[in-house]
Amino acid sequence: MKKHHLRIPGPTEVPEKVLSAMHTSMLNHRGEEFIQLFKEVSEGIKEVFQTKNDVLIFPSAGTGVMEAAIVNLFSPKDRIVSFPNGVFSERFAQIAESFGAIVERIPVEWGQAVSPEIVRERLAKDKKHEIKGILFTHNETSTGVLNDVKALRDAMEDHPAVTVVDAISSLGAVDLKTDEWNLDIVVTGSQKALMLPPGLGFVSISPKAWARIEQSRMPKYYWDFKAAKKSLEKGQTPYTPAVSLVFALKQSLELIKKEGLTNIFQRHITISRALRAGIKALGMKLFVDERWASPTVTSIDIMGYEALNLSKLLKNKFNITVAGGQEKLKNKILRIGHLGYVDEMDIICILAGLEMVLEDPNLYGKGVKEAELYFERGEKSR
Amino acid sequence: MKKHHLRIPGPTEVPEKVLSAMHTSMLNHRGEEFIQLFKEVSEGIKEVFQTKNDVLIFPSAGTGVMEAAIVNLFSPKDRIVSFPNGVFSERFAQIAESFGAIVERIPVEWGQAVSPEIVRERLAKDKKHEIKGILFTHNETSTGVLNDVKALRDAMEDHPAVTVVDAISSLGAVDLKTDEWNLDIVVTGSQKALMLPPGLGFVSISPKAWARIEQSRMPKYYWDFKAAKKSLEKGQTPYTPAVSLVFALKQSLELIKKEGLTNIFQRHITISRALRAGIKALGMKLFVDERWASPTVTSIDIMGYEALNLSKLLKNKFNITVAGGQEKLKNKILRIGHLGYVDEMDIICILAGLEMVLEDPNLYGKGVKEAELYFERGEKSR
Repeated sequence: MKKHHLRIPGPTEVPEKVLSAMHTSMLNHRGEEFIQLFKEVSEGIKEVFQTKNDVLIFPSAGTGVMEAAIVNLFSPKDRIVSFPNGVFSERFAQIAESFGAIVERIPVEWGQAVSPEIVRERLAKDKKHEIKGILFTHNETSTGVLNDVKALRDAMEDHPAVTVVDAISSLGAVDLKTDEWNLDIVVTGSQKALMLPPGLGFVSISPKAWARIEQSRMPKYYWDFKAAKKSLEKGQTPYTPAVSLVFALKQSLELIKKEGLTNIFQRHITISRALRAGIKALGMKLFVDERWASPTVTSIDIMGYEALNLSKLLKNKFNITVAGGQEKLKNKILRIGHLGYVDEMDIICILAGLEMVLEDPNLYGKGVKEAELYFERGEKSR
Repeated sequence: MKKHHLRIPGPTEVPEKVLSAMHTSMLNHRGEEFIQLFKEVSEGIKEVFQTKNDVLIFPSAGTGVMEAAIVNLFSPKDRIVSFPNGVFSERFAQIAESFGAIVERIPVEWGQAVSPEIVRERLAKDKKHEIKGILFTHNETSTGVLNDVKALRDAMEDHPAVTVVDAISSLGAVDLKTDEWNLDIVVTGSQKALMLPPGLGFVSISPKAWARIEQSRMPKYYWDFKAAKKSLEKGQTPYTPAVSLVFALKQSLELIKKEGLTNIFQRHITISRALRAGIKALGMKLFVDERWASPTVTSIDIMGYEALNLSKLLKNKFNITVAGGQEKLKNKILRIGHLGYVDEMDIICILAGLEMVLEDPNLYGKGVKEAELYFERGEKSR
């Protein structure tokens, strides 16, 4: 019998206290008890978004709130600029197109970050302010690249386009200052750093975004932010809320508050650096440059290990579940998720697992050693 | 936030499926549903005991069923021989004395196993068969010594004394053939290899033991085996059973059956050997000789590490909980439990934890490396 190590970039492991919170009987979702609870978590989640903006909560996958952002902000034929550098930034563009927006893609090589210069350059040319919105992906889950959203937003300067940020695999794990960085819409999902099961989508909406929402002509019903806000003012939701997940959210917000956002961000930085140090010590190649390597998901270039089905070996021998590459990165990278409920020993285990499946006894202990060195000495040792 | 690694020799970690099984509403413990369940688990547990004897289940700590064995088998002034080599074998003797038995202790050095020779020697002298019972401790939890109960029983030859075995920290993790080895009474507790929370005590009773029970004159009420057996024939218990733990037992028996006893025994042997190899690679001294080192608990001699409070460091830095020494071994050994719901990665984690608290960077990765070598190559590499 082997314990399961879920090392995909979401759904992530859920702490026992959060699981237990869900084991609570259903209640009347229109009754006073739930109203108080929903008000409390809707306020509490704002701290994680680092915002005073409204944050709406939907029963939804992450992709649902990406769509919600699009259909609430824009109108058909609106010009939107996106900088796809992976599956999820490309998906954001496709959603906008599906509803009739004109999406201009400025592609970036997969595995690299979007540079502020290309943002600055494109917007400088838009003298007539034809661009209505800019789509950014904070953490590109498909490659393990963290885009510097602050720098990207700064590069927009005072262009009036709304900034829409997919922070699904970053929010709550990586610093993201919604208000300080002037981000109009930020969306995230429950199943990543928030340490919840999938099923809740979250969206923060700035006053500037609310003004755009008034003018939006894309069709919407379920995702209607105005309806959701009107309900939220009474501690309600327009349609049935995912009650168990709201119980769980209350508990996860308590855990987050107890640890503190600053400590959580540092934990993710520390373990991701230790993991990368360990992987390099094993002679494996990181797919992403250290400059923009994500604190929540790490991709290993597995070209050269074709003969070993690393994912399968990790699963069969040690019950460690990792993710593969998607689309054009299929069979080219292996992705290790380390966000949310994750600690040093999770890093030790994935490295030990890799050491034992690589079929080179000279590697035993080598990655673990580097990670331990990093944990104990941190930057000083590098 | 750090996950808890419970590495004491019990209570041990409980699998999620077992925890979930306890999350079931109470029922009428005299109703048909519970009767069927209790019959099923009372039969199922026999496979773990490797017996066709009756096995009784009490709401109890392990010590409770040790007492139960004594008060059911013996009468005041009965002569009992014990071979104390640690806290729990000494406790067994004390229980017998508390009820008026005359206990003859043949002490063995703590950290060493009882040798069959001293058993053979003592019983050979007992020409008149004055000795009514022999107390053995299969696994001495306080030191991490596995006594060879088969050899000890064989050394008794055809002496008529009843053999009473404390298998609390071994049964279900280490091979113990109740019937094949002719063990009259074997007791165990739920919170060790059975992967349950504490609260259930189990006792197997041979036909020879039942005959002795008929003659017993020690006072008893709660522990009365005859009353329990009479109830069990109807799928009942004399007094209120620990219902949730019985739900859990059904689930843990399923997990045990699924993995298979042989595989479980091998898993414990493998991880304990890998752990010992790792500890030696760190230059630490094992308290117990490899010949009788327990597959379920490993003691490290920590004389020489007084300056480092290893237990405290492991707890504070990595949320790893280990046990210290008891009584005369207090502050002299550190005990690592590895029984029940435990796997290779638990061994990797405890070794990595030790490496990082020992304050010698030359040790980073060294213990893990040895353990990995053992996991991947087994005996061949030694």
